[in-house]
Amino acid sequence: MLITPGKLLAQIDSPADLRKLDRSQLPQVCNELRQYIIDNVSVYGGHFGASLGVVELSVALHYVFNTPDDQLVWDVGHQAYGHKILSGRRDNFQTNRVYGGLSGFPKRKESLYDAFGVGHSSTSISAALGMAVASAIEKNYQRQHIAIIGDGAMTAGLAFEGMNHAGATDSNLLIILNDNCMAIDPNVGALKEYLTDITTSHTYNKLRDEVWNLLGKMSTFGKSAQEVVSKVEAVMKTAILRQSNLFESLGLRYFGPIDGNDIGHLTEVLNDLKDIPGPKLLHCLTVKGKGYGPAEKDQTKWHAPGVFDKITGEIKKKVYDGPQPPKYQEVFGHTLVELAEKNEKIVGVTPAMPSGSSLNIMMKAMPDRAFDVGIAEQHAVTFSAGMATRGNVVFCNIYSTFMQRAYDQVIHDVCIQELPVIFCLDRAGLVGADGPTHHGLYDMAYMRCIPNMVVASPMNEQELRNMMYTAQGEKFQAGKHAFTIRYPRGNGVMPQWKTPLKEIQIGTGRLIQPGKDIAILTIGPLGNFVSTASEILEKEGIELAHYDMRFLKPLDETLLSDALQKYDKIITLEDGCLQGGFGSAVIEYMVEHGYTNRLKRLAVADTIIEHGEPNELYRECGLDTAGIVSATLELLQATPVQAH
Amino acid sequence: MLITPGKLLAQIDSPADLRKLDRSQLPQVCNELRQYIIDNVSVYGGHFGASLGVVELSVALHYVFNTPDDQLVWDVGHQAYGHKILSGRRDNFQTNRVYGGLSGFPKRKESLYDAFGVGHSSTSISAALGMAVASAIEKNYQRQHIAIIGDGAMTAGLAFEGMNHAGATDSNLLIILNDNCMAIDPNVGALKEYLTDITTSHTYNKLRDEVWNLLGKMSTFGKSAQEVVSKVEAVMKTAILRQSNLFESLGLRYFGPIDGNDIGHLTEVLNDLKDIPGPKLLHCLTVKGKGYGPAEKDQTKWHAPGVFDKITGEIKKKVYDGPQPPKYQEVFGHTLVELAEKNEKIVGVTPAMPSGSSLNIMMKAMPDRAFDVGIAEQHAVTFSAGMATRGNVVFCNIYSTFMQRAYDQVIHDVCIQELPVIFCLDRAGLVGADGPTHHGLYDMAYMRCIPNMVVASPMNEQELRNMMYTAQGEKFQAGKHAFTIRYPRGNGVMPQWKTPLKEIQIGTGRLIQPGKDIAILTIGPLGNFVSTASEILEKEGIELAHYDMRFLKPLDETLLSDALQKYDKIITLEDGCLQGGFGSAVIEYMVEHGYTNRLKRLAVADTIIEHGEPNELYRECGLDTAGIVSATLELLQATPVQAH
Repeated sequence: MLITPGKLLAQIDSPADLRKLDRSQLPQVCNELRQYIIDNVSVYGGHFGASLGVVELSVALHYVFNTPDDQLVWDVGHQAYGHKILSGRRDNFQTNRVYGGLSGFPKRKESLYDAFGVGHSSTSISAALGMAVASAIEKNYQRQHIAIIGDGAMTAGLAFEGMNHAGATDSNLLIILNDNCMAIDPNVGALKEYLTDITTSHTYNKLRDEVWNLLGKMSTFGKSAQEVVSKVEAVMKTAILRQSNLFESLGLRYFGPIDGNDIGHLTEVLNDLKDIPGPKLLHCLTVKGKGYGPAEKDQTKWHAPGVFDKITGEIKKKVYDGPQPPKYQEVFGHTLVELAEKNEKIVGVTPAMPSGSSLNIMMKAMPDRAFDVGIAEQHAVTFSAGMATRGNVVFCNIYSTFMQRAYDQVIHDVCIQELPVIFCLDRAGLVGADGPTHHGLYDMAYMRCIPNMVVASPMNEQELRNMMYTAQGEKFQAGKHAFTIRYPRGNGVMPQWKTPLKEIQIGTGRLIQPGKDIAILTIGPLGNFVSTASEILEKEGIELAHYDMRFLKPLDETLLSDALQKYDKIITLEDGCLQGGFGSAVIEYMVEHGYTNRLKRLAVADTIIEHGEPNELYRECGLDTAGIVSATLELLQATPVQAH
Repeated sequence: MLITPGKLLAQIDSPADLRKLDRSQLPQVCNELRQYIIDNVSVYGGHFGASLGVVELSVALHYVFNTPDDQLVWDVGHQAYGHKILSGRRDNFQTNRVYGGLSGFPKRKESLYDAFGVGHSSTSISAALGMAVASAIEKNYQRQHIAIIGDGAMTAGLAFEGMNHAGATDSNLLIILNDNCMAIDPNVGALKEYLTDITTSHTYNKLRDEVWNLLGKMSTFGKSAQEVVSKVEAVMKTAILRQSNLFESLGLRYFGPIDGNDIGHLTEVLNDLKDIPGPKLLHCLTVKGKGYGPAEKDQTKWHAPGVFDKITGEIKKKVYDGPQPPKYQEVFGHTLVELAEKNEKIVGVTPAMPSGSSLNIMMKAMPDRAFDVGIAEQHAVTFSAGMATRGNVVFCNIYSTFMQRAYDQVIHDVCIQELPVIFCLDRAGLVGADGPTHHGLYDMAYMRCIPNMVVASPMNEQELRNMMYTAQGEKFQAGKHAFTIRYPRGNGVMPQWKTPLKEIQIGTGRLIQPGKDIAILTIGPLGNFVSTASEILEKEGIELAHYDMRFLKPLDETLLSDALQKYDKIITLEDGCLQGGFGSAVIEYMVEHGYTNRLKRLAVADTIIEHGEPNELYRECGLDTAGIVSATLELLQATPVQAH
């Protein structure tokens, strides 16, 4: 479907074209850009509300600054659609998030205008500061370095670390705080309340000016009054000017708040700021979903709504025949409440993903026992550890890729201390359209090497439920191990998923089907590809045995020995990285115990996997049905290359 | 050597005994406690300045609060000697940091009074908040939860994340900011400047009071003046009371600053704070090294001085015959300057470890190109990535154990973006007396699984230098891979270490000595144990071949094939964890290529290794000369358990 840009937008092949326009034309550019985003996303899907909110910012930044020499660093990056469309990617924008097409996030390989690749939050200040310091080393004092960061992303520790460094430098850094009171879900925490405060108490700068004016009037009351006034002023200068604002406390000059959806005012202010040296912060108020009614009203729903009817605002759901399997996250959310109703020690924690993880189900049912701590994975884990020391059974739900942010806390605060925190890692494996920054590929490798840690991955909804049930049980909790349960994004395989809860013995797998000569050992959801592969292989007279190992750590050594003794050739299959994961664990056992089976590991190769539908990606990686079939045939034909 | 506590301290077997004393006796307790710490550390070594600085805080906290039911969480924990001595560990304190003895940090297993185990910084707020929330769930509103955190630790993002959450709750949390202007080196960053500001402008609260008083006087100037005053007051209430202080901005009630070395005032203030509900922060000014002159004067040197003469203040150095090998960190520090003098693109980054990493040598020589970013590992990496986008060659030096804090940034900001940042991981392997929280055991496993990453570990100083030289060269930098060079704490093996710089081909190892029947493949410094082991084995007629593989990733497959073909039996040796590290990489290659050699991996087993001298610990793990000898003999005697 061809989507036509408006008249002005059609002429903007690069920001240089935008800069040729008269300032009076910018409102029209904004309208056309907004419409173009709506037209595209309604048909092709993608992130929505965030980009609509920063249409004016995107136009103003490219209009005022000399991109790409001036460096724009978009935080998180799902709000950068306008930026992409303005910077040479208008006509292929319908390939956004599609296999082989544009990335849904800024990406250095894609464009010179994408100064820093992104996907996770809160990196922009540090990255832009690095660029600013690099410019200073080159003695380039003209280049501008701009980090555009949301109020949600501002709560993460990395952003604070960046400000703490920036505020002590004289670097040419402009931080634009894009304050829309939202992460994906409404933003939480003290900072958010503070931002609301300084915003609702009318313009903070006005307040300050008002005090100065009032004090000015005082001097009319005579000399002794003047003395008092000058003392008050001295005190106020210290107290207010330096200490009155959180950002000024951190050495950043603070400007705003201003209406970030007012293109005229924005361009003026940005122009002025160009000439102000040193690190500074401009506080912009924007509306997530701006200009599209339904998206302004329900901002979480319209964060990434999927395809919709742009006229009626109806979000199009896929049509299915009969009952469908649930999303794994829903199984997590409902099962957690089911467990928490019986075990009062259970609490839940999410760093800013209540709807994405479905912890919102528990937050609604048991608001005192479920916590959204904001974008703060490190804190989420250490906070969980703190609760665990007091005997709580903590389910800490973090997307696999975001758990990378809390790796030290898992080791240092949980595992070294033998605290039985339960980590539910959603979005494990290849996640699809979000691409490389969001794939959850390394979790098995980075969790397996930690002592006092159990790692498991369910093949279906029932297994997920039983793992959760097992983890919260007294027996497991007494064992002082942490428990990582990793499961994929998207739908499971069991329409009737609400099976009775049953304890699983830690470190046991299951034989799904016996075979002959060759066996496949799987962990996690890719195991579901095996039955079709088996059917195909059966036609060739090949009987593929299938073991669902379930636990990466501890491995089921009994079952594994059984497989190694019965089958000469072994395939391992996992939705994680090749190095150090499940296949490696199997090999380690095999070699340590003197087995010499032929073994082939199927896993995600040691390269960055781009975005696309998960099925497309698993096909590319050779991890689907076809991959299993061809690996089996290959292994059966193979004679040992080097029989030592 | 028997160290005798003072008269009062001798009676304090637990905090309950302390609480029996009269308030007037507390100064004497402080004196005795301080003296006991000096007596112990001067003879047995350990951390020094930090504990001296918080003698009064330690006494006051245990005097005022009902420990262990009230929860004391010491941040980092190297300042907790006083706490340990007061809480039942006085008489075995001379075993501090000794193999089998007390831990140098709070540790849950060691004492009920250690509410949270620690070693890394900035976890205390999150942990104590978790405890406070757990108490609220139990409806226990009496229990107090106290985080004691230094101004250095306050700069790390995790602390900010904790405050952001805490400030939005009504939890019963007291944060004590122990402000001594120091991390190990002087603290840096905007927050530090802010704290100095609010401190040096005299008591901040006094300032505020002063303004109120002055305004009060105004009203004497008549009615219209009164009107103005009341307007000013209204404005000030918003501007100052709510927004005037960084911590109050974050929803914490701020008290202080007070003199944290004044035991009388401290106990009064803490007593008062017990009755104030909600999250609050007490700003205490203390002097690191307080009460011991030399330590007050040179605080970095006296952070952990080793054994010293307490009378003269002379730090006792070990006496050696002839020239000694340097510390690895010194080789790093000097080599970096040597390289940076020739390559103007080189910059250096450290998160708060300028002296520990020896980056201070470059910071002194080239202050514009070397950066201490504070305790902020995440920022250190993303900041490095930002500089790398502008063509800088970045050496980012982070202790192996602290790199766990920046794992996501390595993946997301560096490797996915193909930025050739060079990570120098000091303190890799077993670090010794600092124990489990500080061992650098997982780095090979967690780095190896990341695409676009080279990982190497030198066996000696020359190799370290050559790896650094190679990493900064144009050839490597053009390849868009990151480079991790991990090396141990402590001294190397080459008194004449300043060898000519030579490029190493990436992914190549070296054959050190050929042998017969059996070969050992090593990576890193444990390779130095092999020559002695070989000598011992030679007497038994066994010729052990030795390959120093140098690179974990990419592996030297040519050399590896050579070893696998020539030697039936293979040992791998590494100073890292058993799962997923070097041995696993060798096994993966071996099995994938159809080799069926007998292989034994020597690595740190999957358990928490406690503290002690590195040699003691490597012996315990079977990774020293004796371990190599016995593994060799075992493997040579072994017949395949299961020849499939």
